[in-house]
Amino acid sequence: MTQTNRQILLASRPEGAASVDNFRLVETPLAPLEEGQVRVRNHFLSLDPYMRGRMNDSKSYAAPQPLGSVMIGGTAGEVVESRNAKFKTGDKVVGMFGWQEFGTSNGGDLHVVDTTHVPLSAYLGPVGMPGVTAWYGLNRIIEPKAGQTVVVSAASGAVGSVVGQLAKRAGCRAVGIAGGAQKCRYVVETLGFDACIDYKAGNLYQDLKAATPDGVDGYFENVGGEVLDAALARMNAFGRIALCGMIACYDAQPVPLRHPQLLLTQRLLVQGFIVSEHMDVWPQALAELGTLVAKHQLAYRETVAEGLEKAPGAFLGMLKGQNFGKQLVKLI
Amino acid sequence: MTQTNRQILLASRPEGAASVDNFRLVETPLAPLEEGQVRVRNHFLSLDPYMRGRMNDSKSYAAPQPLGSVMIGGTAGEVVESRNAKFKTGDKVVGMFGWQEFGTSNGGDLHVVDTTHVPLSAYLGPVGMPGVTAWYGLNRIIEPKAGQTVVVSAASGAVGSVVGQLAKRAGCRAVGIAGGAQKCRYVVETLGFDACIDYKAGNLYQDLKAATPDGVDGYFENVGGEVLDAALARMNAFGRIALCGMIACYDAQPVPLRHPQLLLTQRLLVQGFIVSEHMDVWPQALAELGTLVAKHQLAYRETVAEGLEKAPGAFLGMLKGQNFGKQLVKLI
Repeated sequence: MTQTNRQILLASRPEGAASVDNFRLVETPLAPLEEGQVRVRNHFLSLDPYMRGRMNDSKSYAAPQPLGSVMIGGTAGEVVESRNAKFKTGDKVVGMFGWQEFGTSNGGDLHVVDTTHVPLSAYLGPVGMPGVTAWYGLNRIIEPKAGQTVVVSAASGAVGSVVGQLAKRAGCRAVGIAGGAQKCRYVVETLGFDACIDYKAGNLYQDLKAATPDGVDGYFENVGGEVLDAALARMNAFGRIALCGMIACYDAQPVPLRHPQLLLTQRLLVQGFIVSEHMDVWPQALAELGTLVAKHQLAYRETVAEGLEKAPGAFLGMLKGQNFGKQLVKLI
Repeated sequence: MTQTNRQILLASRPEGAASVDNFRLVETPLAPLEEGQVRVRNHFLSLDPYMRGRMNDSKSYAAPQPLGSVMIGGTAGEVVESRNAKFKTGDKVVGMFGWQEFGTSNGGDLHVVDTTHVPLSAYLGPVGMPGVTAWYGLNRIIEPKAGQTVVVSAASGAVGSVVGQLAKRAGCRAVGIAGGAQKCRYVVETLGFDACIDYKAGNLYQDLKAATPDGVDGYFENVGGEVLDAALARMNAFGRIALCGMIACYDAQPVPLRHPQLLLTQRLLVQGFIVSEHMDVWPQALAELGTLVAKHQLAYRETVAEGLEKAPGAFLGMLKGQNFGKQLVKLI
């Protein structure tokens, strides 16, 4: 019996905002495995903001994704067939198979993970790329010291939630920025931040000022736009800004930075980064993050869409902040 | 006979652009020296863009200069009377006496300099604060590697001219941005840059693109505003921006940065700095710069206004780019 693989392709590039019309679901027969190959049934797809950048045909981190190819992305699943001595049926693995139900590879890009104490999906969140992103930006760019104030935008998200919890563990005051009262409550009550600003209510700058009475020493940026302007205006001298995402700029015209002179007058450091270019830190970061999750010392939350066909809608919703925590697709 | 000291005070804070009305010239009798004091006849005043920031009553590097006080600034002169064992009449010294003909101090802020091979005025330029500023931003932030491209704005100025010459010595392609054909010619022909863009002519971005065929790896920013936007659009991945001055923002409304998302997509480093906060590098930087000037391996140019009363006009002209090289006032 020939098995069928269902895949979602990039069908067209967005003009302005991305839409479901930019994607196409196809069914493809699975070829028999060749010697050395492994076949994985993906259980979870990771949806991440960086994917929006790849949809454009413009200068960014990486070459744009080719039209007609399977949408790129991290995956977690289980080996269902193996002609590679390094993998056996039943192994849980993470990889980069993208938006499809089955992945086939020579194993070079697969990592076997231990799900005894850490759930499989966490390897796409706090113990995966988002977690290492948080770890790198905080520890290698912001370099927080006890008593300092660290602010992070998209604080309830997969990256932001880890940034704030690690900042607290480093002895800092952690302040989040998130959209809506429910997310803000979660950030303070469950994640343990000292405060969280709802950027959809009140005056962002005034609220941030009230929540950062000693100013801001480190800012971890996931969104850009007006949020970056507000945070910049609260930075202390010698502050550090880890620039990880600018979701506000992905769809629309770029949002100008209104007061760039603050970078000079406050002698700030700004460093843009993408975590896949810093593979050297992954082993240390993953070891620390995995231990924290296994010991239930690092909280995280997931929003799970069920079924491959839900991926485009869930992805577009995430870009608008409709997810709450790490956005995943469970392949049923 | 009681000697008279002539001084220029900050009389009022600018509303918008600074004007000569913000300054006042006064005559003050000189008190007899006390034990331990030194009196210096200033020969040169240094005029620098940072002084504009101190005239405002706003958050910047340092506390605003108090109204009614002598305008701050670096000076080079000669000891005319000493009741301090460390200094003798005739010693050439640099200090921070500001805009006045005589300075009196306990000597703690004075440095005796050797004018055998380096002219006195150079200690206010390439072998002084501007030179160390260039050295720090280039070597400690941009960290140029041979074969890379370094761009500097205000390239014919006291700082920019040193940046480009040091970049050339490091094996880089050095490209300047300056105002006017005369300055650009000087930057290429005398300072030895590979190219210089006249921001007052043509299309800044297109001209910069043509002059930086391999993109820009390091950008040394002295002016801000549209020049920063153009340079940012040419930055290569992992580029470094040393943010030293934003003269475009001093008088007027802040000029927004139009494409901040490039900081992320190109994974750029931006570091604002003020050289007086990095005193640890001064000895090494001054030793290197002094050697280069003494050997005539570092060219520099001065615009000299004569007479204390010319200081306000020369200062305002410098803010508009009317100087050509380091702006000094010679006290006659």
